Amino acid sequence: MRLIGLDPGLQRTGWGVIEAVGSRLTPVANGTVTSDAGDDLATRLRQIFEGVQEIIARYAPDAAAVEETFVNKNPTSTLKLGQVRGVVLLAPALAGIPVAEYTPNHIKKSVVGAGHADKAQIHHMVKVLLPTVTVTGPDAADALAVAICHAHHAQSERSLARATLAAGGPR
Amino acid sequence: MRLIGLDPGLQRTGWGVIEAVGSRLTPVANGTVTSDAGDDLATRLRQIFEGVQEIIARYAPDAAAVEETFVNKNPTSTLKLGQVRGVVLLAPALAGIPVAEYTPNHIKKSVVGAGHADKAQIHHMVKVLLPTVTVTGPDAADALAVAICHAHHAQSERSLARATLAAGGPR
Repeated sequence: MRLIGLDPGLQRTGWGVIEAVGSRLTPVANGTVTSDAGDDLATRLRQIFEGVQEIIARYAPDAAAVEETFVNKNPTSTLKLGQVRGVVLLAPALAGIPVAEYTPNHIKKSVVGAGHADKAQIHHMVKVLLPTVTVTGPDAADALAVAICHAHHAQSERSLARATLAAGGPR
Repeated sequence: MRLIGLDPGLQRTGWGVIEAVGSRLTPVANGTVTSDAGDDLATRLRQIFEGVQEIIARYAPDAAAVEETFVNKNPTSTLKLGQVRGVVLLAPALAGIPVAEYTPNHIKKSVVGAGHADKAQIHHMVKVLLPTVTVTGPDAADALAVAICHAHHAQSERSLARATLAAGGPR
């Protein structure tokens, strides 16, 4: 199963693609899609959308995952992030790929084992869990963390399904 | 010049298309694009996006205008509105159509003549300014108000350009 994690931002949207075979995770590629700060909002949204769309076409993931946005106390920032988040969620949806959302705490617990890990710990664990990865930047690292979280989640769902089957199916 | 006004909402996005020839405005069509509340966020954003994209393909406007979102005190609502706003701005941008944004006060002043008009006044003036219009609903009426505002703005820019030219050009 091939998974893409996405970390939306108007300036920089991080992306990370991994392969999950059972509990084994392999990095495929990661990077950052950017927009030009000199352009108007609609044009910048288009740049981010087309960048993400191109990555999805190139790597053909089976599933996508995005971090549930931290709701900022600054409403203008929240609105801006919401707008770019909308077009980032739209790109896999248009390609017919299911999009999962995880809270920041869920991602930290899944990657680091603790819900209050800092960025440095998360980036460190991304490299531990994907030993052969070359992380291209902090936004790409965040995106890889979301993809790893989704892989762990999908795997525990499969384990549960197998255990339920072994126990004679759901009652 | 054909203009589309858009009023983004996750449940209902209003749209209104008008023709502007000089100061003469003619209604073309208006309506509402909806999403299914039972679907996940990415799917709903796709439904709104594809609906707006279809309207743009059908009516081929030369320019689009969207209300600058009222930044809500509830950050969750602001984020939700931001997300749908992102995909609504994206649709004309992908079609190569310039997208203007107007504050709610600017729209009210342009349509009603006062910055603190209520919805009922705006909807009344939409019908006065477009006598032959059949408004299909409140979101469509809001979208038509944005389109009218954009037409007034474009016309005053042209008048200014003519006056500047008559006066011997900009100094």
